[in-house]
This record gives sequence, C-alpha cells and structure tokens, in this order.
Amino acid sequence: MDYRQAGVDIDAGNEVVRRIRSLAQSTFTPGVLSDIGSFGGLFRMDAAGMEDPVLVSSADGVGTKLKIAFMTGEHRTIGHDLVNHCVNDILVQGAEPLFFLDYLATGRLNPNVAVQIVEGLAAACRENGCALLGGETAEMPGFYADGEYDVAGFIVGAVPRARLIDGKTIAAGDVLVGLPSSGLHTNGYSLARRIAFETAGLSHDSRVEELGATIGEALLVPHRSYLTVVRPLLNLGLIKGMAHITGGGVTDNLPRILPDGVHAEIDRSTWIVPPIFRWLQTTGNVPAADMFRAFNMGIGLIIACAPGSVAALLEQLAASGEASAGPVGVVGQGGEGVRYVG
Amino acid sequence: MDYRQAGVDIDAGNEVVRRIRSLAQSTFTPGVLSDIGSFGGLFRMDAAGMEDPVLVSSADGVGTKLKIAFMTGEHRTIGHDLVNHCVNDILVQGAEPLFFLDYLATGRLNPNVAVQIVEGLAAACRENGCALLGGETAEMPGFYADGEYDVAGFIVGAVPRARLIDGKTIAAGDVLVGLPSSGLHTNGYSLARRIAFETAGLSHDSRVEELGATIGEALLVPHRSYLTVVRPLLNLGLIKGMAHITGGGVTDNLPRILPDGVHAEIDRSTWIVPPIFRWLQTTGNVPAADMFRAFNMGIGLIIACAPGSVAALLEQLAASGEASAGPVGVVGQGGEGVRYVG
Repeated sequence: MDYRQAGVDIDAGNEVVRRIRSLAQSTFTPGVLSDIGSFGGLFRMDAAGMEDPVLVSSADGVGTKLKIAFMTGEHRTIGHDLVNHCVNDILVQGAEPLFFLDYLATGRLNPNVAVQIVEGLAAACRENGCALLGGETAEMPGFYADGEYDVAGFIVGAVPRARLIDGKTIAAGDVLVGLPSSGLHTNGYSLARRIAFETAGLSHDSRVEELGATIGEALLVPHRSYLTVVRPLLNLGLIKGMAHITGGGVTDNLPRILPDGVHAEIDRSTWIVPPIFRWLQTTGNVPAADMFRAFNMGIGLIIACAPGSVAALLEQLAASGEASAGPVGVVGQGGEGVRYVG
Repeated sequence: MDYRQAGVDIDAGNEVVRRIRSLAQSTFTPGVLSDIGSFGGLFRMDAAGMEDPVLVSSADGVGTKLKIAFMTGEHRTIGHDLVNHCVNDILVQGAEPLFFLDYLATGRLNPNVAVQIVEGLAAACRENGCALLGGETAEMPGFYADGEYDVAGFIVGAVPRARLIDGKTIAAGDVLVGLPSSGLHTNGYSLARRIAFETAGLSHDSRVEELGATIGEALLVPHRSYLTVVRPLLNLGLIKGMAHITGGGVTDNLPRILPDGVHAEIDRSTWIVPPIFRWLQTTGNVPAADMFRAFNMGIGLIIACAPGSVAALLEQLAASGEASAGPVGVVGQGGEGVRYVG
C-alpha cells in the first residue's frame, strides 16, 4: 500500500501512514494480498470468483461539498460521499466493488484531519464490502488554502460479462423506477452554497425550520450507496439499465443509458421533492429546468425495466426497505433526452 | 467513460469531453469494452490472458512539479509524469499496466489546458500500452488559484500470482543495480523550487550553464517509464525485488522492499550524480543526507538480484539501451535501512 507523501514534511506523512494503517486493514477482504508499504496494492482476481470478469472502474471527487466540511469541521462524512458515489457509478453497470484507492491533497498536512477523512473512507468501504487498497496523501504547499484539501476516489469492481448492464435493450414502453436520494449527494454544491450563504446570508449553523436542521447539517448528509438494495435486483435479472443521478441531474444523466431513437418522459408529480431542494429553489428563485440539471431533486438512481418486471422489482425493493421507490416515468418512442411532465 | 464535471459550467465540461474522447480512444487496447459516456470504464480481464492474475493498483499525483508547468505554460509533459510514475509503481511488483484513470481538478476550467493535459496522458498511455479508461474533470470554484489545477492518476495492472515480485527472497550478498533517472522525476519540487526561484532568484526561463538549459526546462523533464527495459528482465526471472525511487529518495524507498534482518549498503561513488542535483545541492547548500531523502540523485529504480544474475541482467539491460545501468550497492547482513558509503 502506497500512502506516501509528495511534499516536504516526510515525518508528518509517516505519522499519518501509521494511523491510517489499521483503518485500511479493517477494510481488507479475502482478495487483498498486500500490506501497506508496498508500492502497489494487491488484489487476487480469483477471489471475486467470476466467469469472464469485466473490470468496471471509475474516478470521482466530492466537488465543493468539501467547503461544507471545512465550514463545519466535520471531516468524517466526506469519505462516505466519495466511496458511495464511486460504488454507485460502477453498480449501474452491474458491478460489485472490489477495491478503492484515494488521493488526498492538502497544502499543509493536518494529521488529525487526514485521519478523520480516512476513518470515513474506511467505514464506507467496510459498509460496501470494498477494500481500501491504497492511496496517496500529497502535501502541496501553495496549492490549497489553510485548512482546505481536495480528495478524489478511484474504484474497481467486477461483473461477469454476461451480466453486464448497459441499457442497450431499453425500448419504448419500459418503465423508469426512481430510488430516493438522501440529499444533494455530491452535486450542485456551488449553486447551493451561493443560495444558502450569499443569497440567504446564512452561516453553516443557522437553523432552517423547513429542514428541521441547520443548513450545514442538511447540506452535509452523505451520498447514499445503492449497493445493498440493487444487488438482489441484479440477481433476479430485472434491470435493463440504471442511471446514477450525479452532476447534470436527471436531465443529463438519464440520457447516458438510453439507446438511439427513444426518449425518457419523467412525471414530476410521481414523487415529493424533498424540503432541501424546495428550500433551495424558493430561496434562490431558481427555474425548475435549472434545478433538474443542478440537483438530483430527490431521485438518486433510476432503473429502467420492462413493464412486466415492475411489480417484482418494487416488491423486492420494498423487501430491502426501499418502500418509497416507485415509477417516475416511461421510455417513449422517438426523440432523445428527457421530457418532463407534471 | 466518465468525464463528468462537478462544477457549474456544464457546457464547458461537455466541450472538454468531446475533445478528450478521441484522445482517450487512441489509447484503447483490446481489453477495453466501453465508450466514453458510460458511468464506469470497462475492461475485460480475460484480455490480459493470465493465470491466477493479481491486480496491482496505485494512486499518485505529480506534486508541486505542477508549479513548473504553470510557470512555463507547458502542460503536455505532466501527463507523462503521472502515467509513468504510476506505471513504475506497479512495475516494481512485476505488473504490466492494464488501464489508467485520471482526476483533474481546477477552479475554472480552461478547455485548452485540460485538453493539453489529456494529450500528455494519452501519449504516455499509448507508450506504455495502457488504456486511458476514464477520469473525472472537476471544476471547483474557490479551490484553486487562477490558471492552476491539481491532477491525480490511478492505475490498474496485473501479474500472474506466481510471478509477483515482493522482495521476500532478498538476502545478504545480493546485488543492487541502479537504473538512471531522467531528472527529478516527480519528487523534491518544493525544495527544488525554493532553491531555484528563491535562493538563486531565477525565473523559469533563466539559462543555467551547468545544465545546458533553462531551469524551467531542466525541472520539467518528464518522469521516465521503466516498463520497456524491465519487461525482458521479468521474463528472464532475474529480479528479486525492485524499488521505485520516489518521495523520500533512496533512503526511504529502498527499505520498503528489504526483508527483516538485512540492510542496504549504497556506494555513492558508483554513479555520477547528474548536474541538476549537483547544482541544487551547491546552490541550496543542502546536506548530502537531505539530498538523498528529497531527490532520486540520478537513480530512479533499484533492482535487487542474486550475485550470479548480475551479468545476465546487465547484458539484457544493455541490449535494451540501458548501458549506463550498473551495481550501486549490496545487501548486507543485519541492521535495517540504507547505509551510504563513497
């Protein structure tokens, strides 16, 4: 494992390595071969036990949600955001996570903050059955403001080739089932911060009645993972395609899985937009079209399935505790992209 | 492939995606299944054609070498630094690269700069036979100074388990063979910049006679890849262990592959330290011990082999054009870490 440091204070880096070691090891799954300290992290592919495995990989950041962590001093939730975002990005192609690596860059390394971040990463990795296999902690004087940092995540998962989900069989008449998000997830924070802290003039610990929380708490709610509720659906073979609703919202993400010659019709009356989005829209006086491109609006994952599969799919989702999932639209003949009704 | 953007200017991000698409596709190897636009990058493991494959993975950055790119406006070499650094980090465990992903973060996206960076990444990926499978381009207002960015790389390679190199068989009497670096590679830049631009008061385009180049040119020389010269040695089974000399220099990196109960004795008289390091040491009045911990001092990779393998190893290296490689030390009984003589 490769927790080295690109900056000048090598001893501070080594101290972080020592404190991180046990956190990373707490995530190790049977496939992991390496200890921290070797140059690359080692994972035995056979441990995945798959026929004709396809590796599915993704890189992601947390975006300016990090600024909320800086404001509140809460650095443990960022790891959940990052890992869960990555897990969902490969899950939509049918993949189970195998391992994760992080890149943490800061101006001057604060060992306590670095350890808190990795505590979050490790906890989220354990929850997703994903090994925290390595990472890089870089101290880059002059790059980041005092107390600030950036963090990126890289995930590798696998899926048997025959079970790869790519949306190619999606056809007119298919149903689009929406799964609720837990909040803003990791997108739209530049707009949300402008509305909350400039337009509304709040500070992070201002209580907002409609939200039943401080604005900082509401904006820091972690990005959820859909792995445990989607896994049983994968085993049942009910899914034609899945879109993770990230930057660009439903408007930009749903079309990524649609074949040529069809469009998605999303009925906005089918779910209740959560209070945080309504508060942002009202306070910022944001047009609905912009809201649906900047935010997930309460729907974090959309599953496309055949009409005949909907009942079984919803039943299984309810059995997994996902009772509020439901149809949010249909696939229509012709055109492209997303059309909103309701 | 997942070149999305976490910031607000989604259209600028989409423009970058379009220009990057053909660059990434130019790197695709037979294992790649995905086009850009799907949520995760797809790689068919069977394409590697290995028995009991072990995935070897690493995450890295370029450190403050980026500041040299900002000064000179040359953004194409950074990609070579990042990819080659990652390739070497998994090569030392015997792995061939399969695919690479990047994370590029900036305050305000400059599409031309982003494309130049990816041009370098793609060229380096092609040179290493490694697919540029995906990445994230994040626009994060307020995180980076104007014209600045950070970039991280993530690599996955594979090695048959029986051919994994871990240094466990290294024993007293083994020989340490050094391979020349191409310059500072990606480490020591915070110190080097302080010496060049503060102590010596140079600007990036100041010519330094001893270097036969401007200081900016000398500091921007890309990190080299050792893949093509090491691959034949792997096939011959001559290598017991390898250390990539990165942050921490020979002093911190060589011990990472040594088993308990042995130390490395490095004879500094066995190679000529290149002019850039001598200039930095003299100009900055840096103690030798600090030089060997901050910089690679002209040795970018160290191979441990049995004494009886040295001749065959050097012969093969010479056949690969690596004629200046040679023994730089031995493994000694007892103790730990690196002792310098000469």
